[in-house]
Amino acid sequence: MGWGDLGAFGEPSKETPNLDQMASEGMLFLDFYTANPLCSPSRAALLTGRLPVRNGFYTTNAHARNAYTPQDIVGGIPDSELLLPELLKKAGYTNKIIGKWHLGHRPQFHPLKHGFDEWFGSPNCHFGPFDNRALPNIPVYRDWEMIGRYYEDFKIDLKTGEANLTQIYLQEALDFISKQQASQQPFFLYWAIDATHAPVYASKHFLGTSQRGLYGDAVREIDDSIGKILKHLQKLGISEDTFVFFTSDNGAALISAPKQGGSNGRFLCGKQTTFEGGMREPAIAWWPGHIPAGGVSHQLGNVMDLFTTSLSLAGLQPPSDRQIDGIDLLPAILQGQLIDRPIFYYRGNEMMAVRVGLYKAHYWTWSNSWEEYSKGIDFCPGQNVSGVTTHTQEEHTNLPLLFHLGRDPGEKYPLSFVSIEYQRAMEQISAVVQQHRATMVPGEPQLNVCDKAVMNWSPPGCEKLGKCLKQPESDPKKCFWPH
Amino acid sequence: MGWGDLGAFGEPSKETPNLDQMASEGMLFLDFYTANPLCSPSRAALLTGRLPVRNGFYTTNAHARNAYTPQDIVGGIPDSELLLPELLKKAGYTNKIIGKWHLGHRPQFHPLKHGFDEWFGSPNCHFGPFDNRALPNIPVYRDWEMIGRYYEDFKIDLKTGEANLTQIYLQEALDFISKQQASQQPFFLYWAIDATHAPVYASKHFLGTSQRGLYGDAVREIDDSIGKILKHLQKLGISEDTFVFFTSDNGAALISAPKQGGSNGRFLCGKQTTFEGGMREPAIAWWPGHIPAGGVSHQLGNVMDLFTTSLSLAGLQPPSDRQIDGIDLLPAILQGQLIDRPIFYYRGNEMMAVRVGLYKAHYWTWSNSWEEYSKGIDFCPGQNVSGVTTHTQEEHTNLPLLFHLGRDPGEKYPLSFVSIEYQRAMEQISAVVQQHRATMVPGEPQLNVCDKAVMNWSPPGCEKLGKCLKQPESDPKKCFWPH
Repeated sequence: MGWGDLGAFGEPSKETPNLDQMASEGMLFLDFYTANPLCSPSRAALLTGRLPVRNGFYTTNAHARNAYTPQDIVGGIPDSELLLPELLKKAGYTNKIIGKWHLGHRPQFHPLKHGFDEWFGSPNCHFGPFDNRALPNIPVYRDWEMIGRYYEDFKIDLKTGEANLTQIYLQEALDFISKQQASQQPFFLYWAIDATHAPVYASKHFLGTSQRGLYGDAVREIDDSIGKILKHLQKLGISEDTFVFFTSDNGAALISAPKQGGSNGRFLCGKQTTFEGGMREPAIAWWPGHIPAGGVSHQLGNVMDLFTTSLSLAGLQPPSDRQIDGIDLLPAILQGQLIDRPIFYYRGNEMMAVRVGLYKAHYWTWSNSWEEYSKGIDFCPGQNVSGVTTHTQEEHTNLPLLFHLGRDPGEKYPLSFVSIEYQRAMEQISAVVQQHRATMVPGEPQLNVCDKAVMNWSPPGCEKLGKCLKQPESDPKKCFWPH
Repeated sequence: MGWGDLGAFGEPSKETPNLDQMASEGMLFLDFYTANPLCSPSRAALLTGRLPVRNGFYTTNAHARNAYTPQDIVGGIPDSELLLPELLKKAGYTNKIIGKWHLGHRPQFHPLKHGFDEWFGSPNCHFGPFDNRALPNIPVYRDWEMIGRYYEDFKIDLKTGEANLTQIYLQEALDFISKQQASQQPFFLYWAIDATHAPVYASKHFLGTSQRGLYGDAVREIDDSIGKILKHLQKLGISEDTFVFFTSDNGAALISAPKQGGSNGRFLCGKQTTFEGGMREPAIAWWPGHIPAGGVSHQLGNVMDLFTTSLSLAGLQPPSDRQIDGIDLLPAILQGQLIDRPIFYYRGNEMMAVRVGLYKAHYWTWSNSWEEYSKGIDFCPGQNVSGVTTHTQEEHTNLPLLFHLGRDPGEKYPLSFVSIEYQRAMEQISAVVQQHRATMVPGEPQLNVCDKAVMNWSPPGCEKLGKCLKQPESDPKKCFWPH
């Protein structure tokens, strides 16, 4: 989902009344970022409070490449990483993940081995394969064992776009919240649904209801579900004890637009890129009785902050034995403070850009390769900013491309290198980057090796269901990451 | 000003608290249009309720060219046109225009000859000339006579961007409203300020206050002024008797971006074009006690509707002796009805495109000429949609380019000509266009002839001020309209 997909963020059809109301009752973050322009690394960052280059969710197979956790990935979240639910346990929290895990699907990466008490969802995304013959379909787990597979037991009709998944995930959330409220136990719910990822789906009730087509139907269903979750908290009388944050893990994918693609508003390009369209996200904080209604914040925020902020809410300190990139947003949320901090835009092993205040400096630019582009793979359809949306990896380290995101949110007009404004801003930014690089110790890259043998052939529980598939011989290879 | 310039419409800096509040107290129109992608024709349409091609505010000097009223224009609003203030007089209204008139500056076109009772402002825009030597600076009138000139008596500092004009126009508005309230007379105030037109300015208090630079400063000053006008109405106790509508006369000019250009959100291109960025406008209706607070309307609206709607509010019928293009929006505003009506996108003498429902068909495409484009004049900076943002005038009459503005508000993905969806939509659109063309009787074009002799050399009142300039000999020529 992209920055521009909500009515509160200017989507012209304005079809998200529940999220818009969540914003009007809570706080809208206009300058909130994900940690990576792709799913798995962002989620790893959210749960560890650390940049993917630290927690291992990146690749060194090639320079500045996006990598994630497809079925044949060998790696996953290292045991050495401390995840938010592991830490929250110390404060008595019950932790549940509903939906996409994405931090590795081999046994050692199972979410219940990393702090979660309950899981209902899938280890990988619901895109392909779709036939369970040549390759296994993605399993859906309840806690330790699979209970079925996408496209087989959990239908997604690729022709009509109908699927009941968001409704199933919604019901799981409502039930979990009810259970926790009844038992008076504090809880952390990570509601990490698959929608609006392509292939886009919505349940029957929402199909055909949006001006925006199937993608809009999916957005409307998410909006409706979040409205129901918030109302459920209110009905149970725990809304003033429950901090809720809504955001997304990468910008809207424009490659699948218009039928399967969302909106990044007026920002440049989309998912997979380190332009604003790839990493600036819709974000809303909600906590009635604590967050002033109708608040708007320009705090530079990041999904990694949800790690630190959640610990703070639980009265816990972040680990002191490692670098944590997330900051505690509570002073911004509760007291309206603006905390000075940079935003780093990584693609794989490379820091592509950095934002300090309203300035953003690109040290590297790349949309995608000419080879891909010539095949019709376009992360910036209809957008082409000369020297900016480059199709070769262009290094600008000696003279970064600098944009003022207030005057030029669309990253179309680089500042003149000889201007005083450029020199002043770059002085400040250079110091931030120097400090960042001097203290950067990259983690061991987890997304380098792929092997068909590790796919979801025979997840735990498959025997009971008669759904075990024959695992091929191991044949580990370097994963190929084209962009 | 463009669709995306207000916080309520998704501007990322969200710096328009007063307009956003006006929207939350009133009704936001998301599908509201101007009648032309350029100033003078739009304003003529607003005041006559008729398309520029009917009221004469267009040119036949060349095909599909934007024309307006520079100082050397010979034409202006024809006497045969009935303007909104002329009609409102019949219902006892006092009518005032504050700001830019733009419907011709020769004596017969004076706003007080066309229904206004009072005028404070200028006949033309404040851009150039700036020295009053080779050419006269634009005069500022109070009612029948000039009281000074821009850049001489009404300072605009082109270096700092400082000018007090919006404050002067604000005070005029507040004074007029107070006077009308005191005399218990109904009034029509046309607050047609120059800002945010380039060269952009703001008063000292607002300079440097916006994240967006000088343009944002100007937007903030407008926002603040409108807040003051609405509060003034409330303070005087007449807010429930006063219908207020906010909109703009064309999309944001992108040619002057980023320092002097605004935002059309995610829409394609800007001012001068018939893409959505050129003609879709921010629009808010406000009338406490009548318009439900927080309303949102997808009614296809047009500035021409303000003519018909205002007459309706005053209990008057629109003229029956001529084609009126504006519709009465009150059913949409007060009862939430959706009235079926098309939007026509004209450029000069050509209907370039038409919107019916969510479909928009382009019968002609043109951004601007290669000749201009190669000189750096770009109405779609950073945007280039192959076959859509064409630099030659391309006719598509036999097979219009069709977009679905719900799924594709950015006009990037024309529908396949062979799809059933295309055929069904075009059937409906073709009937609307056929009907439109069959009944179209263009007015006599007013924007064909230019003559240096008609410039503002010696406006009435210049003698008293010692500001009369020598008029050169008449030398009428065809005006040159490059785009």
